[in-house]
Amino acid sequence: MNTNLNDKITDIVKSIIKNYESDSSKTKRNLQHILMSGNLAGTGKLVILPVDQGFEHGPDRSFSINPDAYDPHYHYQLAIDAGMSAYAAPLGMLESGIESFSTRENHIHHTPIIPLILKCNSANSLSKVPNQAITGSVKDAVRLNCSGVGFTIYPGSENIYEMMEEAREIFEEAKEHGLVCVLWSYPRGSMSKEGETAINVVSYAAHMAALCGAHIIKVKLPTKFLEPDSTKDVFIKNNIPIDTLTDRVKHIIKSAFNGRRIVVFSGGAAKNDGELMEEIKAIKNGGGFGSIIGRNSFQRPKEKALKLLKEIMDIYKK
Amino acid sequence: MNTNLNDKITDIVKSIIKNYESDSSKTKRNLQHILMSGNLAGTGKLVILPVDQGFEHGPDRSFSINPDAYDPHYHYQLAIDAGMSAYAAPLGMLESGIESFSTRENHIHHTPIIPLILKCNSANSLSKVPNQAITGSVKDAVRLNCSGVGFTIYPGSENIYEMMEEAREIFEEAKEHGLVCVLWSYPRGSMSKEGETAINVVSYAAHMAALCGAHIIKVKLPTKFLEPDSTKDVFIKNNIPIDTLTDRVKHIIKSAFNGRRIVVFSGGAAKNDGELMEEIKAIKNGGGFGSIIGRNSFQRPKEKALKLLKEIMDIYKK
Amino acid sequence: MNTNLNDKITDIVKSIIKNYESDSSKTKRNLQHILMSGNLAGTGKLVILPVDQGFEHGPDRSFSINPDAYDPHYHYQLAIDAGMSAYAAPLGMLESGIESFSTRENHIHHTPIIPLILKCNSANSLSKVPNQAITGSVKDAVRLNCSGVGFTIYPGSENIYEMMEEAREIFEEAKEHGLVCVLWSYPRGSMSKEGETAINVVSYAAHMAALCGAHIIKVKLPTKFLEPDSTKDVFIKNNIPIDTLTDRVKHIIKSAFNGRRIVVFSGGAAKNDGELMEEIKAIKNGGGFGSIIGRNSFQRPKEKALKLLKEIMDIYKK
Amino acid sequence: MNTNLNDKITDIVKSIIKNYESDSSKTKRNLQHILMSGNLAGTGKLVILPVDQGFEHGPDRSFSINPDAYDPHYHYQLAIDAGMSAYAAPLGMLESGIESFSTRENHIHHTPIIPLILKCNSANSLSKVPNQAITGSVKDAVRLNCSGVGFTIYPGSENIYEMMEEAREIFEEAKEHGLVCVLWSYPRGSMSKEGETAINVVSYAAHMAALCGAHIIKVKLPTKFLEPDSTKDVFIKNNIPIDTLTDRVKHIIKSAFNGRRIVVFSGGAAKNDGELMEEIKAIKNGGGFGSIIGRNSFQRPKEKALKLLKEIMDIYKK
Amino acid sequence: MNTNLNDKITDIVKSIIKNYESDSSKTKRNLQHILMSGNLAGTGKLVILPVDQGFEHGPDRSFSINPDAYDPHYHYQLAIDAGMSAYAAPLGMLESGIESFSTRENHIHHTPIIPLILKCNSANSLSKVPNQAITGSVKDAVRLNCSGVGFTIYPGSENIYEMMEEAREIFEEAKEHGLVCVLWSYPRGSMSKEGETAINVVSYAAHMAALCGAHIIKVKLPTKFLEPDSTKDVFIKNNIPIDTLTDRVKHIIKSAFNGRRIVVFSGGAAKNDGELMEEIKAIKNGGGFGSIIGRNSFQRPKEKALKLLKEIMDIYKK
Repeated sequence: MNTNLNDKITDIVKSIIKNYESDSSKTKRNLQHILMSGNLAGTGKLVILPVDQGFEHGPDRSFSINPDAYDPHYHYQLAIDAGMSAYAAPLGMLESGIESFSTRENHIHHTPIIPLILKCNSANSLSKVPNQAITGSVKDAVRLNCSGVGFTIYPGSENIYEMMEEAREIFEEAKEHGLVCVLWSYPRGSMSKEGETAINVVSYAAHMAALCGAHIIKVKLPTKFLEPDSTKDVFIKNNIPIDTLTDRVKHIIKSAFNGRRIVVFSGGAAKNDGELMEEIKAIKNGGGFGSIIGRNSFQRPKEKALKLLKEIMDIYKK
Repeated sequence: MNTNLNDKITDIVKSIIKNYESDSSKTKRNLQHILMSGNLAGTGKLVILPVDQGFEHGPDRSFSINPDAYDPHYHYQLAIDAGMSAYAAPLGMLESGIESFSTRENHIHHTPIIPLILKCNSANSLSKVPNQAITGSVKDAVRLNCSGVGFTIYPGSENIYEMMEEAREIFEEAKEHGLVCVLWSYPRGSMSKEGETAINVVSYAAHMAALCGAHIIKVKLPTKFLEPDSTKDVFIKNNIPIDTLTDRVKHIIKSAFNGRRIVVFSGGAAKNDGELMEEIKAIKNGGGFGSIIGRNSFQRPKEKALKLLKEIMDIYKK
Repeated sequence: MNTNLNDKITDIVKSIIKNYESDSSKTKRNLQHILMSGNLAGTGKLVILPVDQGFEHGPDRSFSINPDAYDPHYHYQLAIDAGMSAYAAPLGMLESGIESFSTRENHIHHTPIIPLILKCNSANSLSKVPNQAITGSVKDAVRLNCSGVGFTIYPGSENIYEMMEEAREIFEEAKEHGLVCVLWSYPRGSMSKEGETAINVVSYAAHMAALCGAHIIKVKLPTKFLEPDSTKDVFIKNNIPIDTLTDRVKHIIKSAFNGRRIVVFSGGAAKNDGELMEEIKAIKNGGGFGSIIGRNSFQRPKEKALKLLKEIMDIYKK
Repeated sequence: MNTNLNDKITDIVKSIIKNYESDSSKTKRNLQHILMSGNLAGTGKLVILPVDQGFEHGPDRSFSINPDAYDPHYHYQLAIDAGMSAYAAPLGMLESGIESFSTRENHIHHTPIIPLILKCNSANSLSKVPNQAITGSVKDAVRLNCSGVGFTIYPGSENIYEMMEEAREIFEEAKEHGLVCVLWSYPRGSMSKEGETAINVVSYAAHMAALCGAHIIKVKLPTKFLEPDSTKDVFIKNNIPIDTLTDRVKHIIKSAFNGRRIVVFSGGAAKNDGELMEEIKAIKNGGGFGSIIGRNSFQRPKEKALKLLKEIMDIYKK
Repeated sequence: MNTNLNDKITDIVKSIIKNYESDSSKTKRNLQHILMSGNLAGTGKLVILPVDQGFEHGPDRSFSINPDAYDPHYHYQLAIDAGMSAYAAPLGMLESGIESFSTRENHIHHTPIIPLILKCNSANSLSKVPNQAITGSVKDAVRLNCSGVGFTIYPGSENIYEMMEEAREIFEEAKEHGLVCVLWSYPRGSMSKEGETAINVVSYAAHMAALCGAHIIKVKLPTKFLEPDSTKDVFIKNNIPIDTLTDRVKHIIKSAFNGRRIVVFSGGAAKNDGELMEEIKAIKNGGGFGSIIGRNSFQRPKEKALKLLKEIMDIYKK
């Protein structure tokens, strides 16, 4: 949970941490550890490697295109080599490399080389139930010396209230243990398929995550589509700018407590790298805090992945 | 949890507190703290700022008309500047300003500048399930030095028994910690839409809240409509006066243990200010204890809000 | 929990208490306290005032005919003035008068002037779900210095097994704290409306309550109707006498462990006082232990209520 | 929990106890207490009086044919006078006689005159839900100085997995307290009515009970009917002998860990005494451990019941 | 939990254990105990005897073909005589022989002669509900000196999320007590019958088990059928070799963390021994860690079973 002490905590990082007014010093140190790790250390930006696709889409859709990725160690090493800010994965993934990728500072504690986030619930495509299974606990996260826990909610799903209550319980316990709480807020269920990434829906989802007490919020990049629900009209009436992706990122940041909560974005299905770079620039220009980059990281040869990730981070660093 | 010691506890406040016969001295102190805070301190009246609309209607329907309100600090400051009796909001909203809006009296405890009420459950319009998610706990309320907790029940909903049991558990724990228990009692489900604010239905809802052990009861202002259910006939047979709003407020106060429980009212969707003032007068004349004013507070420029709130409080002070 | 020490425990009360063979001395003292309180002290009979109608039918159907009854203090005072054996009500009702109607014997404990029974679950007519919400706990009962707890089950309802399990948990905890367990056993669901008070159904309901470990059983006065279910035939074949109300009361007492458990009766909707007195005589002659009299107590002017209750108690005293 | 120390533990009892290899010495003492009690003490056979029919069929179908049986004390005395090995009943039944039918050996503990088994769950015929309510706990059993707990499961019911999990929890706690675990395994739901006592179904039910960790298994005497399910064919193919009742009892004993678990049988609806004696002989000849005899015990005058039970025990003693 | 100290821990076993990076030394010792027991001790391969068929298919379909197998001791002895690596069975089965098949090393602890795995949940064919009942606990496993616990999940079932959460809770507690966690991952529900053993489905199921934190994963041998779901296409597009059974075993091992988790296979319904040996060779050649052999072990005369198991182990030893 210690950051590299040689690094100086930058002012931008200090100002971000200051927004977490209710948190214990241990939680703040863990958040700072993430913000002071990897290539983006000290910039106030972060790029996280998530590897829960084995649960979500199965191992073969996730890894057969780059078979080295079947090995959990691959992802630890990729995250480290690419200078990611943190590595997020389900229980088994983290367990299987925790010794190989920790420094042993004294006889008792292992310190992971990269900040770890235990993804505590997961869905899988064999099941059609719009829910997730809890597969990791705060106890596990503590045992593995993680810096944080991750949880997914589905705003709009028939199970949303139950999922929010599960998140609440895990986050309460996580905060008691000084862990950073990361909330994946993915609308589905009550809206159209297109509506799942509509700006009015993602804005709602981001705000809900902030209200739930998340420290870091993960949403999908919103489109300019407006789902025709009760929240659509005000976008038109009040002229909320949503035409460019930069506009929409700005709006999400506003919805997430006006910049007081870290929001990171994912793009979803892999697209060409040019488009991806445009997205990264929009996130940066819109005041977004960074990206969660899964499939674009591990679904290509490692060298190419490192190159891509370097380009992404270079944009964020500028 | 301390009130301004320079203020003298007034007789009216003492007489209100005396009605809470079973409560611990800590709970009574917290209730007194609310009644001795803000512009209405000592009058026996109270005006509370609730900001759970971000959950209920989404951030954009709630805040885009007055974009400053996207920032959680805006609401803390508004409540303080307007001299509200308390500020009620979900977990994330309170967490994000708890340090900025607390005095640091000694090295251990922060004291919020305004009494805080943690709203412990919330619904959202992305979900159509007639229920709410628990998003805050008594532990959270204690950690944030709140004066009370808030909870919503939906009398008439298919989930009402479960919601009442959740309220019971939270209130039991809250009372053990000396926190004030505020119950939002909002009928929906088994009655017509118009019936949700019918006088016979709201009267029932207020009484249920009192029976559940709430210290402060929040209902919507009732109309003179009588929902055609088993409780309608006695209104006619026993000549219960319900023609004027003042009559109806009086009746609600009677239903809530004949004045022994604090009842505050909300009006719902914003209307013109003239109508609003008439409502406030009716609450005052009917013996109501005050108002919860959300959207009329933060869905207009701050200056206008402060002016409106001052006018409201002036009515209550008279 | 102390009875009036000036009263001598009568033989009839001693013999009743002796039937509670498994109970702690504290539970026995609480039961004895009820049997040695009020006008029927020492007679082995009891009349209890229940005021949960505000939950069940709403405040207006319950109280508007006698508006003084909107005030919770009214019921405490009525129970005391009428010399009732105990007063049973939901949490809020008891809380709101616990100080006014307790003697303060020392600096720590309040002793209620009349034995209190906390009604721990309740239904309401806004909901059509055949269940009840738990609204009070054993912890609450202990905090309020109650002598007992009350619970309702609906034999025949789709939720009966869940309700019995809830009763079991509350009664187990209540017995650990020396509290008297009162079970309202009200058939509904699987039988006809008329069958809810059929002698074969009420007999079954009373026996179930006894098997559940209740100390005091509350059933409705049974009619001579026989619900056509699997229990009907034996009434005919074995010539069980059920023609008069006295016969039927005798039979219920037999079903409730052959007189080893206290059974009290309610009549339901108010009827004329003459009929009521005939019912009381039948309860007395059939060996019933007394009555729970709610609506006939508080739905008339106090003076008339006191007169009626005196007449009832005079019958039981004879 | 002590057996009569004047009795010598017989070899047959020792050999039965030896089969319970994982149990604590306290559990073994309680099992031994049952096997060394009553007229069959030391024979390795047992006859248990169960009185849960008041729950299952109601008091009147159970007791009106022999009205003395409405009194819970009747059953205690009957079990003692008849020399039964144990008496099994729901909470209220045991509570109501626990003092009258215990010796007081020292100032602290009561010892029941006959080993008691608390029946911890029960169904009732007012409900059509294929489940049972938990109405007693291990805590209750310990408080009443019982030797064991009883539980019913319905293999084939839609609720079977939940019932098995409830049994597991109660048995785990019971074993920690040294109590004997008795499992009533009554198939219903997925099979035909006739199939509920089919030899292939009862064999499955007995084996499931053994796998669940029961010490004593209670099943109904199987018929030679074969329910046409996936288990039927092997009876024919492998020539399992099932023609005589003795054959079928032998088979059940084999299914219950090849004689390593005590299995007792019930016959169901009362039939003539001659048939009953033939059944007892078949149980004895087939290596069954005894009977649970409810309705044939208490649904006739006591003298006749004692005579019948003596005849039954005489068969087992031979 | 001690292995035979005369055996030298082999390098292959050391290298396997090393993959369990997050586990306590006690868990590693238990895993090592399994890998150093029986005829395959030290080879890095294992053959486990599972006897939960009595639950799954009933005693008669399981045992009547070889009636000695009705006796639980038969299986203990068979596992020992055959030199199995461990014996896995439900609670009752393990309890009934725990003393006979343990050495008593000192006055306090029994050590089972063969490593035991408590199967903690089970289904049965009398129920059609796609779920299992929890019938054993970690507490039970500790009490019986087991080396591990076993659990089944049904990926694709409507109850999969609940089953995964139950597995999670049991595995968390098991790891705290140093027990090895074995997960049976059996797809059913959302896919075709043929799809339950399709290579793309079994691969998914094996990976899910690894992600859930299992130490040992049990799947059925996959066929080359590809279930037409979202995971099918990549098998074709990325040329994943699945034509031979060896190919498919290799693929499963890859899916289970690229060889970092022990995977054992079962074949399902008994077939001729020649085919079985071909399967074993394919498991061995594909890098599988061994087999779970139930029905092929105990559904034939013991001598024949020992011969078959020896042949199987000889293949693994080569």
